[in-house]
Amino acid sequence: MTESTAERNRSFRTALGAFATGVTVVTTRYEEDDVGLTANSFNSVSLDPPMVLWSLAKTSRALPVFMAVDYFAVHILASDQQALSARFSKSSADKFANLPLERGLGEVPLLPQCSARFLCRTAFRYEGGDHMIFVGQVETFDHWDRPPLLFHRGGYKVAVRPADATVALAPAPEPDSSFSRDFLIYLLSRAHHQLFLQIKRDLERHALTEGGWFVLSLLGVSDHRSLDELQRLLAYTGTEVSYDLVAGLAAAGFVKLDGQYDPYARASLTDVGRAIVIELVAAAKATEVHAERNIGEVETQLVKQALRQLIRDTEPGPLELRGSVFPDTE
Amino acid sequence: MTESTAERNRSFRTALGAFATGVTVVTTRYEEDDVGLTANSFNSVSLDPPMVLWSLAKTSRALPVFMAVDYFAVHILASDQQALSARFSKSSADKFANLPLERGLGEVPLLPQCSARFLCRTAFRYEGGDHMIFVGQVETFDHWDRPPLLFHRGGYKVAVRPADATVALAPAPEPDSSFSRDFLIYLLSRAHHQLFLQIKRDLERHALTEGGWFVLSLLGVSDHRSLDELQRLLAYTGTEVSYDLVAGLAAAGFVKLDGQYDPYARASLTDVGRAIVIELVAAAKATEVHAERNIGEVETQLVKQALRQLIRDTEPGPLELRGSVFPDTE
Repeated sequence: MTESTAERNRSFRTALGAFATGVTVVTTRYEEDDVGLTANSFNSVSLDPPMVLWSLAKTSRALPVFMAVDYFAVHILASDQQALSARFSKSSADKFANLPLERGLGEVPLLPQCSARFLCRTAFRYEGGDHMIFVGQVETFDHWDRPPLLFHRGGYKVAVRPADATVALAPAPEPDSSFSRDFLIYLLSRAHHQLFLQIKRDLERHALTEGGWFVLSLLGVSDHRSLDELQRLLAYTGTEVSYDLVAGLAAAGFVKLDGQYDPYARASLTDVGRAIVIELVAAAKATEVHAERNIGEVETQLVKQALRQLIRDTEPGPLELRGSVFPDTE
Repeated sequence: MTESTAERNRSFRTALGAFATGVTVVTTRYEEDDVGLTANSFNSVSLDPPMVLWSLAKTSRALPVFMAVDYFAVHILASDQQALSARFSKSSADKFANLPLERGLGEVPLLPQCSARFLCRTAFRYEGGDHMIFVGQVETFDHWDRPPLLFHRGGYKVAVRPADATVALAPAPEPDSSFSRDFLIYLLSRAHHQLFLQIKRDLERHALTEGGWFVLSLLGVSDHRSLDELQRLLAYTGTEVSYDLVAGLAAAGFVKLDGQYDPYARASLTDVGRAIVIELVAAAKATEVHAERNIGEVETQLVKQALRQLIRDTEPGPLELRGSVFPDTE
């Protein structure tokens, strides 16, 4: 191997990046100044006495500060605190500007709303190559039930439970096959249909189909659309916005049409229609909240994220719509 | 506060659990014995010279070993190595039994197929309360591009990119609304439909609908099912298995029916039908592989997991099927 030091350092850094860690902000107070920086070199050391450690580059401008102070605080960041991590990882005149602060021992600034927080007395300072290792004895600590922010391979991540492919889908198909367990399109089809069944009763009370509901919801967001627009906007869900569908909504008194048998006829919600949209959005939200409670909050966000990604990646481009939205298309 | 030491320790442990870490197995060789244990107290220390650290309880039976040895190896585990983590976290006569091993400096046993691996010379041993801190100078290292195993709040986790709710869904609906961005049922509906469009061309070549495709796939897993069974097994996807649908598959030569106009008539794949199932499974697999590449491997597994969970949680119970699967139901 004739690797240069720079190459070896880069390669070593990459190998170290394989170890995922939480992200912390370490703060202290030194000669009337608040000092803080982002570190992921934190770890627990001892339970009794309670001790934690972190390390700091000897080239850091903050090194003399931490060599001098008696107290420092370590804040374990929560998954929604990327901005705080970024703020404390850059050098800036006042990283603490506009942050609500509490004060601990030694007047150390304490940040609120993280995942856990340890206020430490400096117990040991150890040599560690180009870094110093600081071991703190924990004097006080707090923790909140918040999901953690992670750092891995140079980027932020969040932690979720590993997938368990053994979850069986009762009752069918039998025998439980890889088709039903692993095929995304089957899982999407079934999840969609079953979630739809949950709100179907609410829809049926108003004699609405899923397509009719999508039309009303879309008008709820942006009213007074032509049938042509509605068709274009909903085509990606497989919903066909026929004239009959919209005429049915009009006959039920949910929408008002300002044209007849014309793809440019515009539909608007009536007061009754708007009340139904509000009712159904609330019902659908309740279904979502239920799903979120079962799947997990972070997991639900990730599923939605993955579905958005999937939707973007399978975007079929401008659809070739049928030439007409007139009754004969239904 | 009149917290007992035990209570305080428990509470401190919980607070420390807020910091997510990777999982490592540390190994060494001592007097002809291979020694290894699971640790998550690892962290990087120094880049130049390259150094890492980890800590070990002074009560550990392995402490005298690590106080004596010159070399040890740290293995950062990959997301599929939970079993290895569990194996090395229990005391057992031979934790290394049947593991394929390489040997490094000092005959230290090296495990294959982890996420990264560091072979270290013991540089410092430091006091750390009820633990010893071991700082190793890294002599050689390897790394592989494998997702990491995490430990957080007492359980295993995996790392995924955080959800980014700002991903826009072009081209519609406009204006981009919370309805289209955040509603699970809309996202499921659209993801399902667009994924379906991807394989639609393959289906159309054989004049198949999605329902027809599901029927053939189901017969591919478990042949010779009655229409009644097919209907029951596929009802959860919203697919209606009508007699016409199956009769159409029979007319096309894909299935053979051993009865007529009878819900107990059984359908079996013909050779042609079986060849088509194999072809379509391959096409669908290709679509899945494509999605997996875009969404990410771990993320795809999680989406499937979440969908399975969602399906299980929204299981409507025995469906009230229509009384008949005869032509008039279509």
